[in-house]
Amino acid sequence: MVEIDLDKYRNLERRVGEDWINIHPIQRGGILPSESRKALLEFANGYSTCDYCLEGRVDLVKKPPILDFAEDVAKFLNMDEARFTPGARGAQRTVFEALTEPGDTVVLDSLAHYTSYLAAEANDLNVKEVPHSGYPEFKIRLDEYADKIEEAKSETGELPALILLTHVDYRYGNLTDSKKVSKIAEEYGVPFVLNAAYTSGVMPVDGKELGVDFLIGSGHKSWAASGPVGILATTYEHADETFRTSMIQGSWSGRSFTKKEVYNYGCPPVFGPPIATLMASFPHVVERVERWDEEVEKVRWLVKELEKIEDFHQLGERPRRHTLFSLETPSFHKVSKKRKRRGFFLHEELKERKISGVHPGMTKQIKLNTYGLTKEEIEEVANAFHDIARKYDVKVEE
Amino acid sequence: MVEIDLDKYRNLERRVGEDWINIHPIQRGGILPSESRKALLEFANGYSTCDYCLEGRVDLVKKPPILDFAEDVAKFLNMDEARFTPGARGAQRTVFEALTEPGDTVVLDSLAHYTSYLAAEANDLNVKEVPHSGYPEFKIRLDEYADKIEEAKSETGELPALILLTHVDYRYGNLTDSKKVSKIAEEYGVPFVLNAAYTSGVMPVDGKELGVDFLIGSGHKSWAASGPVGILATTYEHADETFRTSMIQGSWSGRSFTKKEVYNYGCPPVFGPPIATLMASFPHVVERVERWDEEVEKVRWLVKELEKIEDFHQLGERPRRHTLFSLETPSFHKVSKKRKRRGFFLHEELKERKISGVHPGMTKQIKLNTYGLTKEEIEEVANAFHDIARKYDVKVEE
Repeated sequence: MVEIDLDKYRNLERRVGEDWINIHPIQRGGILPSESRKALLEFANGYSTCDYCLEGRVDLVKKPPILDFAEDVAKFLNMDEARFTPGARGAQRTVFEALTEPGDTVVLDSLAHYTSYLAAEANDLNVKEVPHSGYPEFKIRLDEYADKIEEAKSETGELPALILLTHVDYRYGNLTDSKKVSKIAEEYGVPFVLNAAYTSGVMPVDGKELGVDFLIGSGHKSWAASGPVGILATTYEHADETFRTSMIQGSWSGRSFTKKEVYNYGCPPVFGPPIATLMASFPHVVERVERWDEEVEKVRWLVKELEKIEDFHQLGERPRRHTLFSLETPSFHKVSKKRKRRGFFLHEELKERKISGVHPGMTKQIKLNTYGLTKEEIEEVANAFHDIARKYDVKVEE
Repeated sequence: MVEIDLDKYRNLERRVGEDWINIHPIQRGGILPSESRKALLEFANGYSTCDYCLEGRVDLVKKPPILDFAEDVAKFLNMDEARFTPGARGAQRTVFEALTEPGDTVVLDSLAHYTSYLAAEANDLNVKEVPHSGYPEFKIRLDEYADKIEEAKSETGELPALILLTHVDYRYGNLTDSKKVSKIAEEYGVPFVLNAAYTSGVMPVDGKELGVDFLIGSGHKSWAASGPVGILATTYEHADETFRTSMIQGSWSGRSFTKKEVYNYGCPPVFGPPIATLMASFPHVVERVERWDEEVEKVRWLVKELEKIEDFHQLGERPRRHTLFSLETPSFHKVSKKRKRRGFFLHEELKERKISGVHPGMTKQIKLNTYGLTKEEIEEVANAFHDIARKYDVKVEE
């Protein structure tokens, strides 16, 4: 027998307590409401959603009502069909696999999530980036999608296989105007993918209104699901190609798998907790997107408070239209240089105040997310930053 | 606002009770021990394992000890490197993507899981199947891997890109002799993939001893994890190619992602519950594989008892070397023809006795798994089948 120290895997505990204030940029939209924690235990085992699977695909299971759920998710997003995928990254892979051939070109916004680039790389595609406006707003220059399409056309003789826009980016939390891009996509007849990992599930997102061909969401980022689980919604026009079923036949056995969707693993790896919690959180999600305005109001208040600290400047568009945002914090960076623990001082000061989510070691720029925090919690965050600033002789405007 | 009946998603309940005896063929090895149910709640949120992520990849996280865990899993399997994937299906995709070009040939056993065929189809590969011996044993004719390699060579001028063997198949639960195939693979210099979804995690599996290049496991099938989560282990020889990191560079921004592994989504979608429960169950798994002999003894006893029923015959190799098995049950099929609910009578009779897992509607052949059931529970299963037989005038040998 091999020698392995197994004790370190016993009594695994998260270091961030339940009662802490979590401002982690990617975690706020994925926190499970109590009804989903219940579902998590009810469907704890991986195949617990598959007791009554008759068709061999999780999206067709009737008990629990996953088949209805897939339809309701499509309806909620105002799209025609929806599937579940191994994360938004999985959804991007599925679309890229289905729509492209090696050597094709795709156009991405230059603030796309790294998984968009990797979906291209895994499928041997060429990537053209649409630039952004740079410091301090970093706005994607949406009109230039047309230029990039033209560029691809003149260089390769062919249109790009697809264009992708990130609805709200991971870095500055800028909300892009998808309608502008969908018009360009329509004009050229190029499929348009919107990565709505940071929007659908927290704010109202209407696929038809935005004019998208593919709408991608993230369960663990923004739909209060344990995950990892993604949502891939599309239109009738693209459904057959994207969700094409298997045509392979065993050379000797003749076996075939005609119900299985090729680009989605036959049956996507989302059964058990991911799909159960996504479903259990759905009523909560449908309801909460209607309260988006309140969330925006709260984040704007926090930005104002944080900018009272010397040299703190919010990056990205102003005013905020999303709860995820970046701040440059050069005054804290100066402090870090004089500290033994360097950039970790901020993380540790916040930890002492039971606030988690600021990247350990970061002080030049920090990223936060206020989604779903109460006004009181946000005030606590503001006070914590003010206190820390004062403690290290960084000025705070009164 | 769209109209959606949200009430059906409230209070989701599994129909199979906690106190039932579950003999579902694919569920036995995935049942969470209590320590993992605890971990499930502790790491309920999707990004809960990412609080202290510094490198941007879940397999490199130190708190909780996922980095150590990846190393320990490789050690446990006697392989050099391990990664976590969206199910065993995800692991197959990763290997096929990394090792093949469109148009290549791969060789599979004709009892391979459908996800092996789909991994080939998604990557535009040609599949050659190694035949099995047919009724009643359905043993893969392992020597013929050599013939299929030769066939590919003479038809295409090239060796297959890889050969895959299913360690224990999903249908008959036959245990194959991987060493025979690894010798053939070595002789031809073709990479050898072993799909150990039904073996690693429940019985001892030693990758080096079996001579494999890639060893694939399933967390939710056989490692007592909630999942979906798979395990992909390989040798130093193949690690660089399989886990190659990103080389893409933003055409305008110059962004690059050099830590991210291209074929594994950059950071694989297994964070949160899948990896937390896989890790929490690891001590349990390491310990349980040593008791495999007892499991085999129990299944053999059940087969003997079930074959006392008229015309019940175990399919697949004899005697059993795995706890998953198929039975032909023509006497029950005869009964079903006279019943209003047709084939559902068996499912329903078992349900009344709080036994779940026999596919609803099936009576010609049924599939069961006894893994981890106590002797008493297995006796209950035997008695239930005997009772049902007698109830419908099917003879039971005394």
